[in-house]
Amino acid sequence: MLTESNYGKSGIRLVKVIRREGSHDLRDVTVAVRLEGRFEAAHVSGDNADVLPTDTMKNTVYALARDCFDDSIESFGLALCDHFLRHAPAASRASVEIAENPWRRLTAGGAEHPHAFFREGAERRLANVSRTRENAEVTAGLDSLTVLKTAGSRFEGFLKDRYTTLAETRDRILATVVEARWKYVAASLDFDRSFALARQALLETFAMHDSASVQHTLHAMGEAVLAAVPEVSTIRLSLPNKHHLPVDLSRFGLESENEIFVATMEPYGLIEATLCRQSE
Amino acid sequence: MLTESNYGKSGIRLVKVIRREGSHDLRDVTVAVRLEGRFEAAHVSGDNADVLPTDTMKNTVYALARDCFDDSIESFGLALCDHFLRHAPAASRASVEIAENPWRRLTAGGAEHPHAFFREGAERRLANVSRTRENAEVTAGLDSLTVLKTAGSRFEGFLKDRYTTLAETRDRILATVVEARWKYVAASLDFDRSFALARQALLETFAMHDSASVQHTLHAMGEAVLAAVPEVSTIRLSLPNKHHLPVDLSRFGLESENEIFVATMEPYGLIEATLCRQSE
Amino acid sequence: MLTESNYGKSGIRLVKVIRREGSHDLRDVTVAVRLEGRFEAAHVSGDNADVLPTDTMKNTVYALARDCFDDSIESFGLALCDHFLRHAPAASRASVEIAENPWRRLTAGGAEHPHAFFREGAERRLANVSRTRENAEVTAGLDSLTVLKTAGSRFEGFLKDRYTTLAETRDRILATVVEARWKYVAASLDFDRSFALARQALLETFAMHDSASVQHTLHAMGEAVLAAVPEVSTIRLSLPNKHHLPVDLSRFGLESENEIFVATMEPYGLIEATLCRQSE
Amino acid sequence: MLTESNYGKSGIRLVKVIRREGSHDLRDVTVAVRLEGRFEAAHVSGDNADVLPTDTMKNTVYALARDCFDDSIESFGLALCDHFLRHAPAASRASVEIAENPWRRLTAGGAEHPHAFFREGAERRLANVSRTRENAEVTAGLDSLTVLKTAGSRFEGFLKDRYTTLAETRDRILATVVEARWKYVAASLDFDRSFALARQALLETFAMHDSASVQHTLHAMGEAVLAAVPEVSTIRLSLPNKHHLPVDLSRFGLESENEIFVATMEPYGLIEATLCRQSE
Repeated sequence: MLTESNYGKSGIRLVKVIRREGSHDLRDVTVAVRLEGRFEAAHVSGDNADVLPTDTMKNTVYALARDCFDDSIESFGLALCDHFLRHAPAASRASVEIAENPWRRLTAGGAEHPHAFFREGAERRLANVSRTRENAEVTAGLDSLTVLKTAGSRFEGFLKDRYTTLAETRDRILATVVEARWKYVAASLDFDRSFALARQALLETFAMHDSASVQHTLHAMGEAVLAAVPEVSTIRLSLPNKHHLPVDLSRFGLESENEIFVATMEPYGLIEATLCRQSE
Repeated sequence: MLTESNYGKSGIRLVKVIRREGSHDLRDVTVAVRLEGRFEAAHVSGDNADVLPTDTMKNTVYALARDCFDDSIESFGLALCDHFLRHAPAASRASVEIAENPWRRLTAGGAEHPHAFFREGAERRLANVSRTRENAEVTAGLDSLTVLKTAGSRFEGFLKDRYTTLAETRDRILATVVEARWKYVAASLDFDRSFALARQALLETFAMHDSASVQHTLHAMGEAVLAAVPEVSTIRLSLPNKHHLPVDLSRFGLESENEIFVATMEPYGLIEATLCRQSE
Repeated sequence: MLTESNYGKSGIRLVKVIRREGSHDLRDVTVAVRLEGRFEAAHVSGDNADVLPTDTMKNTVYALARDCFDDSIESFGLALCDHFLRHAPAASRASVEIAENPWRRLTAGGAEHPHAFFREGAERRLANVSRTRENAEVTAGLDSLTVLKTAGSRFEGFLKDRYTTLAETRDRILATVVEARWKYVAASLDFDRSFALARQALLETFAMHDSASVQHTLHAMGEAVLAAVPEVSTIRLSLPNKHHLPVDLSRFGLESENEIFVATMEPYGLIEATLCRQSE
Repeated sequence: MLTESNYGKSGIRLVKVIRREGSHDLRDVTVAVRLEGRFEAAHVSGDNADVLPTDTMKNTVYALARDCFDDSIESFGLALCDHFLRHAPAASRASVEIAENPWRRLTAGGAEHPHAFFREGAERRLANVSRTRENAEVTAGLDSLTVLKTAGSRFEGFLKDRYTTLAETRDRILATVVEARWKYVAASLDFDRSFALARQALLETFAMHDSASVQHTLHAMGEAVLAAVPEVSTIRLSLPNKHHLPVDLSRFGLESENEIFVATMEPYGLIEATLCRQSE
């Protein structure tokens, strides 16, 4: 009757300080660990003999961070998955999700400070690593990246019915919070470089695309990542349409020049799609 | 290259007042609409001819709430799906997700008040309805239901390795925030009655189960729903383990009697599983 | 140059289980401690000799919870303030703020369960206790109590200017999230009873008042508390106006009967006032 | 019996696009308006004749944004206060609070893009402007600015009692989320320049200060602002101590080198103080 199960620890908050001569580096991540496998006994009869406690998962993340987290979050995730498969014999799959909060050096006295930092934005870099006893899969991505353009966006020529009141527009604000996740063809590559290329492709395309809709721009952003990063096999984008409604100032005897907007939180459009290479 | 796409409107906040003689009823829901289908033209070439605007979806939810929302949220969702398939010819699937916030009557002068209410908790009732041109699927559920028991929960006999520091315990606090979603065998049944039975089975089992782990209690809760509601074919539960750590008062020369706890937010365990009937 | 300072620990999460024969009780509070006094040396020269660490404050809350938290949160706060004034000689004032999350017993097998509970809503009971070496002040209250009425609320006859577009209405939804704080005349009284009386006065008045505005209802609620609880000397209420906007269905050829509303989050009105007894 | 009251509109979300030749500028603010004065009639008898609706306040913010919001948020706030005092005769004081979300230009093709932007962090610039019929007060500030230093912070020599378990440390992480509010001596000055100077003084001091405690660094940051910006008469700082706890790896047979930390959310220290010039 149990058709699928998984368990693990979420919200493991880890900060690592790398103390180099003369300056420090800072890594700030939130880790989630997940195991799948033959855990029926725990569910059905309450026998925990195969269950590695989630508290142990947390301890392991801190312990392995000392020696295995010097590099990309993807590499750290792979090392963790490898460890958990070796120490939990009942597990058939180990998955690790890491979200990295970026910090930037503060400027003091005209120069970058060696050990003082500030949190730059809500944007997070993401890695989802999953390993079975046979193979490994690496998905990278980002979320909470809020972008907005004040030109180059229109929405017209759409389907209308009895309940349609939206006006066509050739000039609107386009704002979204990018969530993107892309799968790599291999579990060993230069993850930092690929991430940087994918991120830049997303942002440049958002800025420069002549947008007929969120769908249209999403598709262009996905194509740009596939073109810029050959190691990416497939990409999924999820783009909320954060509506900015022009205020009709004519009610107050003022000319409206598409200048004053209400930024709304809800409701919001939500556009999602997955793109992969033609050959697949 | 486009392998999957969907679009829609989320966060549609709707309140309906049903004005009966002598007393009012109140319904408070948040609706999300989603369409899938042949929308390649919008993505690839920016042609919106097949795209029913998400703003129209929002208007439709409000308009249909007048005549089609007198009953369960499942019925309202089915009516909405039906409408969208008829008015968006490119859509092959319409999905509607409804979350209902429960309100309860205020008591005034010793009696229930006919038109004053208060919000009772964070718990939400959920319905996910999805319809293609051939068939319909109805999933019901609930989330944000926080429960806790101060006895009847242990965790012992688990796997240990080098990084295990957790002590075995025969008496701990068990706390979780229930998220449950169950699928019905049919798209036409007494949804309100089935929901009430499933919810009661979840809560009674949580309270009365002699728990060897979250996995153990999750399984018992799932089994109880399948036993109590024959119309349910499968149920998925997601139970975070909201750890309550006993404070060691012996450091202060005080006896500890498993009485004082720190309630923690992170990290948290996360246990998930899906159960279905044996025959399937 | 230092004109005012305070320091302390916030967000101390404490759960206490009272294990009676046959059934358990549960208390769940969040505590903040604050000290004011002669702490210039710490600020100006970095001399910490007078500074009781905030970590010690946290430990103290857990330690004293064992023997001093059997009763109202106000009493627990007074005991804590007393302790901190005795152990931090530089402090001239100690303040403790306690927010209590209410839990209710689950029902199982038709009866209240002796040790299983659920979280009932977002409402929190509040106590702010402050003590100097001369006297003590106790403020009680509540927040996050969401209420709504579907009749008995109008807003008309208001001031209009060039920018006024709001229509007068004799029948609107009134919804708010009550935050109330009232001061007691003494530091020793039956705090639980006074709280219960004040809360009931707030809710009954909200329900039964014939409201000409949020201001009007706020004033009636404050007066009701002063009338119902002689121990209250002054009360401050803060009532956001959570607007529910009627949807104009006539755009879709449907009759509007003040039945379908959009529940909005922002912007929101905010109405605040303090009432005290005439004699003061 | 009514000793104090105010009312207004909060959460007014306004985006203004300034369309220059060749490039756009973007302003994104959240505005709150508040009136105090002779509003007893509304409270006591439900007479709204003196009440300018909060909906009108919202409309006014959008209308005046067209012509009065070309400059600092402080100037916009002053213009709004002035307007409200003229149009609400019963008001004795009008207050406007503005929080500005900063956006930065996206880089595309190696250059700053003329009309595409991204949200840079959670930091907000704040202005609180308040005007009576006699005078005006301007308070500026910022919040949600998260900073962290990995060296130059110690905490030792503190008061100890029975409940003290904290170890003294000469090398800890110091992390906080800066909230600062400073009052200007005049209502007319170069607000943007003063803000930039104050912000830089806060950040440089945080980075470079040799910290004996949060109190010590707070005081240095306040002094630095008073020294750098002669127009500031007083400054209040509120600094949570976001604890980063070193993980004891020796439990796992590993050497601990002050390298791996748990970032915690609660409980947190909270240190607050106000500084003003000696002469005052």
